[in-house]
Amino acid sequence: MAGPLKGIRVLDLTQVLFGPFATMLLSDMGAEVIKIERPEVGEIARGNGPLVRGLSTYFLSLNRGKKSITLNLATEKGIKLFLRLVQTADLLVENYTPGTMEKLGLGYEQVREHNPRIIYVAGSGFGQYGPYTSKPAFDIIIQAMGGIMSITGEEGGPPVRPGASYGDIAAGLFLCVAALAALQERQTSGEGQLVDISMLDCQVAVQENAFVRYLNTGEVPRALGTRHPVIAPFQAFQTRDGYVAIALRGGIKDQWPLFCAIINRLDIMDDPRFRNGWLRTQNYQVLEPILREAIITRTTEEWVSELEKVEIPCGPVNTIPQVADDPHIAARDMIIDVHHPTAGDFKVVNTPFRFSRTQYKVEKASPDLGEHTQDVLSQLLGMADAEIDELNRAGVI
Amino acid sequence: MAGPLKGIRVLDLTQVLFGPFATMLLSDMGAEVIKIERPEVGEIARGNGPLVRGLSTYFLSLNRGKKSITLNLATEKGIKLFLRLVQTADLLVENYTPGTMEKLGLGYEQVREHNPRIIYVAGSGFGQYGPYTSKPAFDIIIQAMGGIMSITGEEGGPPVRPGASYGDIAAGLFLCVAALAALQERQTSGEGQLVDISMLDCQVAVQENAFVRYLNTGEVPRALGTRHPVIAPFQAFQTRDGYVAIALRGGIKDQWPLFCAIINRLDIMDDPRFRNGWLRTQNYQVLEPILREAIITRTTEEWVSELEKVEIPCGPVNTIPQVADDPHIAARDMIIDVHHPTAGDFKVVNTPFRFSRTQYKVEKASPDLGEHTQDVLSQLLGMADAEIDELNRAGVI
Repeated sequence: MAGPLKGIRVLDLTQVLFGPFATMLLSDMGAEVIKIERPEVGEIARGNGPLVRGLSTYFLSLNRGKKSITLNLATEKGIKLFLRLVQTADLLVENYTPGTMEKLGLGYEQVREHNPRIIYVAGSGFGQYGPYTSKPAFDIIIQAMGGIMSITGEEGGPPVRPGASYGDIAAGLFLCVAALAALQERQTSGEGQLVDISMLDCQVAVQENAFVRYLNTGEVPRALGTRHPVIAPFQAFQTRDGYVAIALRGGIKDQWPLFCAIINRLDIMDDPRFRNGWLRTQNYQVLEPILREAIITRTTEEWVSELEKVEIPCGPVNTIPQVADDPHIAARDMIIDVHHPTAGDFKVVNTPFRFSRTQYKVEKASPDLGEHTQDVLSQLLGMADAEIDELNRAGVI
Repeated sequence: MAGPLKGIRVLDLTQVLFGPFATMLLSDMGAEVIKIERPEVGEIARGNGPLVRGLSTYFLSLNRGKKSITLNLATEKGIKLFLRLVQTADLLVENYTPGTMEKLGLGYEQVREHNPRIIYVAGSGFGQYGPYTSKPAFDIIIQAMGGIMSITGEEGGPPVRPGASYGDIAAGLFLCVAALAALQERQTSGEGQLVDISMLDCQVAVQENAFVRYLNTGEVPRALGTRHPVIAPFQAFQTRDGYVAIALRGGIKDQWPLFCAIINRLDIMDDPRFRNGWLRTQNYQVLEPILREAIITRTTEEWVSELEKVEIPCGPVNTIPQVADDPHIAARDMIIDVHHPTAGDFKVVNTPFRFSRTQYKVEKASPDLGEHTQDVLSQLLGMADAEIDELNRAGVI
């Protein structure tokens, strides 16, 4: 079925993770994403390990369903061809260090002359202005500088990096939101614009709660293992064979008495130190050892089964294989096969978007380098085969 | 200035974090977000600590700029009023446990009868179908069940929760992307649809790299402290006074020789075990102690200064106060004041969206409960003051 973004064309000048993750989301909703790559070399992430049957699984995952064309943007002819493609596109997405596109002659001011309706989305580590704008950035640098590593880890332990590349991934999501909002606005104004998304800004945005607490109370957020800063119990506990996460509802329907019954500690039910979620957080030093001692006595499955009976929110702390095998994940089709004509089938994570009327089905693996050059140039720009051959010989494509 | 979503009206039935974060993003781009709250009680998060000058900073951060109206959806009159509002709206966003809206008579099938153009966005822990659909969910449960806690933490240590509520926050971002894509699609089809976003699905989606590695190679991803699974060095190291993150460029422009020079260990530069990023990852057990020993000898600032000179990507591992004080964050206006008429000014995190032509400025604090009931009912539904007073007396609003 056609996805909700059918008919939207995206020129994709992105690499590695931040930009490609964003354009993957667009592609997964049916947008036509044309990835522009350097002839012969291709995007840098094509070499990222591990390789399976000759394909980078890293690249495969992020670029499934996209088209690939080669174009040498270091040549005048390459730039001219690119600007002709610009005239056919709705979005341009890039995540070079600021200044790179301008040096190529492809900055926003230059591109808009060729298509004032284009939404030019520039993603970067630190954004298009500000003192760090030209600093190189990778996920770990952004997660470090953004503060999240200082509030992730065991209590009193060293900083820890969240297990996903959230510096890139979160920014990719914000980029997509902004790109689609600008597209929406264009419906009425008829005009494109420049959208500037900084990975560091996005890190601050996802930590709104930590910043707001600090800025308005002065309390410095810190790493708390698996605990939540203002609710308790709301964390993972070791069981006889793993870990279980438990999150008591507080407030007017406080599940504390129920929880005390389940863990067989009715003696602490009426303890004034634990009367509500806020007090339990305040007195956590006393409470935590009691809970740890109780919960380690049974298996994760036993706890989940007991707690579910009384509707106390809980769940196992799963490994990646356990998630992949979960029947709910299967029922939601969250792991799917994509097909590559020569390398065969690969498993990737499906899009989490579920549209009742316009669901798009991800089916194709990542494109080979330049797989769609001929098609795109002939169909979008009406170029003849001979002309395309010549560009090929000249190293432009 | 009007934001890119000016003219888009959102009926907001969300609570706590997932839904409110999503509608905050919409509001921050100029959409009119009308938060529907229970009379007298209001949304549950209004009580979330810490309170400052009588306001929940938790609630304030997520609901700045929105409108609040009270409406008792347990009454027939309340439902009728709500359905009249539905006729004026573009989006309806809710994050109740699946089934709740249907019980109220406000499921998608029921709502669309009153406005076939509405985009009905249902966020939930596990989605609108699948074996866990009716399970209660909180961030910690979703982060546990989704696998991220098993790959976050110190090597060999217990599972750790990433320091932000990414179970909610990531899902809120995906929800926004999907909502805006459906809005885009409506431009051509003229029809609304149901969008189903599951927090657990979103957790799998953000870990695409971990899943793809596991699914196609069998290697089980695990917690690595601050390290990256396939590149090295790409992590934080302890310095004399803190931690510094360092991310060497690999590939054809491998910065390894440069890095060896900076850390004064030219002796390991040509070691065949460390020749490229992949080999350095394979031989990390040998390499890491050497690097730790070298980097602990100087301060974070000294390392950042040295490494920046040669353009090796790096940055300090900042605490939240350090981020808040960072001149780049100031230059990007990432921390702003919002004003509450009686409680005064509060600091919140600004939106990370930067639009060249349609930037929206977040200025107002969270609304008081029912602050806009009168305005919305009179302006959108043309109700007279007497009629509104009567609804008030009857406990409908």
